[in-house]
Amino acid sequence: MTNLSINTNVPNYPSFKSSKRRIIYNDFSTIDWTLDSQKERERQQEIKKLTGYSGFISQLFEMCQESFIIILVGCITGLFAGFIDITEGWLSNMREGYCREGFYLNKQFCCWLESDCTDWVEYNDSSFLGTIFGFLVYCILGLLFAVVAAILVKEYAKYAAGSGIPEVKTILGGFIIHRFLGFRTLIVKCLGLVLSVASGLSVGKEGPSVHLACCIANITSRLVPKYKGNQANRRELMSAACAAGVSVAFGAPIGGVLFSLEEVSYYFPHKTMWKSFFMAMIAAITLQIINPFRTHKLVLFQVELNRDWFGFELPIFILLGVLGGLYGVLFIKMNLKVIKYRRTSWISNHPIAEVACIALVTAIISYQFNFLSGGTAELVANLFRECKEIEGDFHGLCSNSYAQNIFLLLLVAVLKAVFTIFTFGIKVPAGIFIPSMAVGATVGRAIGMVIQAIYDAFPNFWVFASCPGGECVTPGTYAIIGAAAALGGVTRMTVSLVVIMFELTGALSYVLPIMMTVVIAKWIGDTYGGESIYDALIHLNGYPFLSSELKRGKAATAADLMTSVEDLVCIQSEGQTIQSLDTIYRENRYKGFPVVTADNLIIGYFGRAELLSSIQTFTQATQTQSNAIHFQPSFSLFDDSIDFQSWMDTTPMMVHPQMMQETVQELFIKMGLRYVLVARNGVLKGIITKKDLLRHFN
Amino acid sequence: MTNLSINTNVPNYPSFKSSKRRIIYNDFSTIDWTLDSQKERERQQEIKKLTGYSGFISQLFEMCQESFIIILVGCITGLFAGFIDITEGWLSNMREGYCREGFYLNKQFCCWLESDCTDWVEYNDSSFLGTIFGFLVYCILGLLFAVVAAILVKEYAKYAAGSGIPEVKTILGGFIIHRFLGFRTLIVKCLGLVLSVASGLSVGKEGPSVHLACCIANITSRLVPKYKGNQANRRELMSAACAAGVSVAFGAPIGGVLFSLEEVSYYFPHKTMWKSFFMAMIAAITLQIINPFRTHKLVLFQVELNRDWFGFELPIFILLGVLGGLYGVLFIKMNLKVIKYRRTSWISNHPIAEVACIALVTAIISYQFNFLSGGTAELVANLFRECKEIEGDFHGLCSNSYAQNIFLLLLVAVLKAVFTIFTFGIKVPAGIFIPSMAVGATVGRAIGMVIQAIYDAFPNFWVFASCPGGECVTPGTYAIIGAAAALGGVTRMTVSLVVIMFELTGALSYVLPIMMTVVIAKWIGDTYGGESIYDALIHLNGYPFLSSELKRGKAATAADLMTSVEDLVCIQSEGQTIQSLDTIYRENRYKGFPVVTADNLIIGYFGRAELLSSIQTFTQATQTQSNAIHFQPSFSLFDDSIDFQSWMDTTPMMVHPQMMQETVQELFIKMGLRYVLVARNGVLKGIITKKDLLRHFN
Repeated sequence: MTNLSINTNVPNYPSFKSSKRRIIYNDFSTIDWTLDSQKERERQQEIKKLTGYSGFISQLFEMCQESFIIILVGCITGLFAGFIDITEGWLSNMREGYCREGFYLNKQFCCWLESDCTDWVEYNDSSFLGTIFGFLVYCILGLLFAVVAAILVKEYAKYAAGSGIPEVKTILGGFIIHRFLGFRTLIVKCLGLVLSVASGLSVGKEGPSVHLACCIANITSRLVPKYKGNQANRRELMSAACAAGVSVAFGAPIGGVLFSLEEVSYYFPHKTMWKSFFMAMIAAITLQIINPFRTHKLVLFQVELNRDWFGFELPIFILLGVLGGLYGVLFIKMNLKVIKYRRTSWISNHPIAEVACIALVTAIISYQFNFLSGGTAELVANLFRECKEIEGDFHGLCSNSYAQNIFLLLLVAVLKAVFTIFTFGIKVPAGIFIPSMAVGATVGRAIGMVIQAIYDAFPNFWVFASCPGGECVTPGTYAIIGAAAALGGVTRMTVSLVVIMFELTGALSYVLPIMMTVVIAKWIGDTYGGESIYDALIHLNGYPFLSSELKRGKAATAADLMTSVEDLVCIQSEGQTIQSLDTIYRENRYKGFPVVTADNLIIGYFGRAELLSSIQTFTQATQTQSNAIHFQPSFSLFDDSIDFQSWMDTTPMMVHPQMMQETVQELFIKMGLRYVLVARNGVLKGIITKKDLLRHFN
Repeated sequence: MTNLSINTNVPNYPSFKSSKRRIIYNDFSTIDWTLDSQKERERQQEIKKLTGYSGFISQLFEMCQESFIIILVGCITGLFAGFIDITEGWLSNMREGYCREGFYLNKQFCCWLESDCTDWVEYNDSSFLGTIFGFLVYCILGLLFAVVAAILVKEYAKYAAGSGIPEVKTILGGFIIHRFLGFRTLIVKCLGLVLSVASGLSVGKEGPSVHLACCIANITSRLVPKYKGNQANRRELMSAACAAGVSVAFGAPIGGVLFSLEEVSYYFPHKTMWKSFFMAMIAAITLQIINPFRTHKLVLFQVELNRDWFGFELPIFILLGVLGGLYGVLFIKMNLKVIKYRRTSWISNHPIAEVACIALVTAIISYQFNFLSGGTAELVANLFRECKEIEGDFHGLCSNSYAQNIFLLLLVAVLKAVFTIFTFGIKVPAGIFIPSMAVGATVGRAIGMVIQAIYDAFPNFWVFASCPGGECVTPGTYAIIGAAAALGGVTRMTVSLVVIMFELTGALSYVLPIMMTVVIAKWIGDTYGGESIYDALIHLNGYPFLSSELKRGKAATAADLMTSVEDLVCIQSEGQTIQSLDTIYRENRYKGFPVVTADNLIIGYFGRAELLSSIQTFTQATQTQSNAIHFQPSFSLFDDSIDFQSWMDTTPMMVHPQMMQETVQELFIKMGLRYVLVARNGVLKGIITKKDLLRHFN
């Protein structure tokens, strides 16, 4: 270590390398984007300087490492998704029956090449005992899976619970949450996700897939120097990983890129879009090769629709949009209430028991409804399909009477909504996409059936004049639109949602109705409900996330936002020693300290973590407890004072006290700043931190 | 006017309203984003303050005006697109024949409800004279249309020439180009576009559609106060209009939103995405209602593909990607050469003659090739289709021998490429999308036919093992992928291009191949060619556009980038009069002047345009030529000095001389700054302008 360097530069503007600055990231601290950007440039220049054989190798490696990591993360994400799909299918099937050929075969593989499938034995053989036995196995295995998932989460990785998207969003916003993207979280989340989905709980795997992909990106990125020491670069890779996660969860690579852009990422320049696009593609190709469903489709519920829509359907689409928006508002409100109650009541001490109860209730009730017993994804898949496409009529969806089906579907929708409200937030990996879509799709299909019943009864009604005879009503399309509306209401996605629905269904001619419904659902949701579920959770958890939207309040200047200099603890640049700094550190809890001269002229800014680290370094390394410290270039050659410049931000962003709050906000949002010093003629007047801003506008 | 205000505030931080700042935008000046943002907040607050009946009306109007304008712009864009589609179709048909029922009917309407269509008379009736007459009419009308388009552009609106996307991009980047988005440009571009497309020139209508939509947005936005005086708000609306333009040109609303995001817009926050989405939808619905092609499809070449792809096709897709990338590189290089030659040679003085020559040559050659004579969009549409879908076999595309067709298609591709190189840049409205797609599609279809020929000859070749018998090769899909590759090579679009291809073709199962091809084309293009055609044109035209990508050079600080204070002309805050300011204005050509005290402490920044305007105001309004001027709050109540604060930026952004260049760049890129003052302890050290940055990194 060369901390005791003697600075011999006597220039007008000393060429002090601020990227040599040491910076310490604690848990829940913010990263310094611009410093990382400087570091990246210097790393690139170091490599360009190398010559000869080793230089060539280094430069080649530099060229390849980024593509290598993107391809690697994409492939691993695809592999994980394949593993999850296959294992989850096997475990789900296990609750219904077993294969005579071997217990390790799921229903599909067991019946491979057999038309009547005699090797697959269902527990429920319609006899009295069989019915009871089937019911018991279904419930007990469901309970078991859920409890194992909850134990895994509780014992090994608490961050594996839930969807993970609010946290990923916060991390991409520039925060450090240690262990959230670690190896242990990855493994537990993967296994837990398989178990929680297979247990029949009302959970999806999209959010968790995004979390998994980010874990993979975070772990893999440590392999190469470009990402290893650079948190900003790593966040770029994670933005791409979000795209890959959705790409494999939904089989929607483009939708994934847009999801990352619209919903998750904080900073998404063109080159990140390009990387996301590339990684989402690699992940999708990997999953295509694994072919987990043996259908050459990427997801279970990929359908293809080629129908046109008619004018009389417009009001129904609008109705679906309104219903979706209202569902979103209601769901978020109720879900937050449940979460808050859970946290403040005795339930918070018994997470596993809670999971067990919910899993058991879900299993018992679901078993009574054919539509629910097979899992949420299968339900959605069948609701989306046209009647002629549905294999085995899916429990009478197309053959039973309209009245019966409509009633059943509405009941299922209500049950699903209630399950989801209680489930989203318990301590197992759980996504919100598929359950939301299921609620919307059941309601949509039910409404579609109502319309079909009307059409069947009055085919010559003038309303149907725009439909030139034949197939006027396709309930499947209403299910698709209903699913989009409900998901739109809950997540407030727009473009990405339409593209995802588009990639799922190939409903080219339905783009306009889907767009319309999503617009209405979002509008209703924003007007009556405020935030999306993810933003609401970020808020509820108190994550330090600064929305990228400019908040407009009443007129204010930097002076109004700042903590005034009178209330600050500043480090005087003259006469400090290690001991005096240590005292300042211990006696104050502030996150950082401006360094000023006796006249309050700003010299720099010292972060709390860096202060501790610098004090420790010198306390351990040297016996210079009482040596003087200098924070500015020292011009004497034989000075024994210690140079603290490298621990300090020597060029903090400064603003005028009269600067308008919009500009200050934009500085924080767009530059990703952590603090801004307010100064006039170089004299410190105050400091504005991200917290000040959050306090002022939230 | 209350310019002679006497400032009576004596606070620590005077509550000076910087949004009352007067700012003057000259042609090619940059807008001040943050000032506009402040103005918007204050406007909103003014309205909130209103009470009673008029307050209610104002607030209601405030709520509705944005949606109203978005819907209005969307509708008008849809109407214009419908008008262009219908008129262009009619004019194009006019070159081939006429309707006995009336000359105002195009072929489609003339043949309405007739199967054999006896009312439509083609000039070329296959007799000797008929052939010659048909040829002459075809060429003369083509020439006439092109020349009229060129005259319109030359005489009435020079900005209507070309695609308009580079300029729109520059404008959205924050620049002012007067008259570029005016009413006259709108009308001339619309008529000129119809004529230039109908003339058979190798031009598309996508770029011009975007320009048209922006004109409509710009003109319409003047109706309401939210946009009238606010350039930043207006740019947001224009970003949305770009989406609407592509939406109607391609029938791809989502693709339009992404095009705006990826290719054109500079600043695209979530609420802009949401507005773009909404406007693109309205525009598409309007066009759908107009139904210009009477097919219930949004565009001429909307097809629907439902085939899967096979493993053996992968290398061919990769080949198409490589060819597309290389075509892009070659096209941009050649096109720029032609444009540069045109500008420096005598041709520049004869734009109409040049258009006439190119139109005539294009018409004469196109008439010899059946594929070319019908227009580019029709060619692309038919190349995309499967053989069984193509009406009338499109000049033997599916019936002639492979060898003949392959040769013809390749020849057509070369001709089309050459035409486009010479055409893109002449003084008529001209887009680049459709011609690029045509080149790619012809090559793709030709390659598809080669593969089909191989398959027909050796159906049992091991390569085809992955294809389970039957239809293994669909040349139409290769045309689609080829088109995507060529367009990707020329424009370097990624996500938006895939979504556009997706919306055009509904090729759900081809998403991965299209993605792959686009990735390869972009990679090849970026590696061997540098910029996209739009960026290259921005560069060539010297538009002051700052790319949103961070440029990394060698280590530099703000001090290295700045123009040093010694080389600057500063306004001393003390002792200035109108006369002395006038002298400073006339004796210097600088774009702005820092205002400093005798000690070089920064007080503010005075822009050149504002300086002129303030001088003129006071010279005309008062007889106070020799009155003193104050730039800082004046504390004496009975001071007759003139307050110049409102003309000045009193809180300019200041940076430390040692600040790293990355941070400075990011300040300019993300905050949309126009200048930054470099200061140390409040003392001016220099100034960095956008030009300094462009000079340093380009």
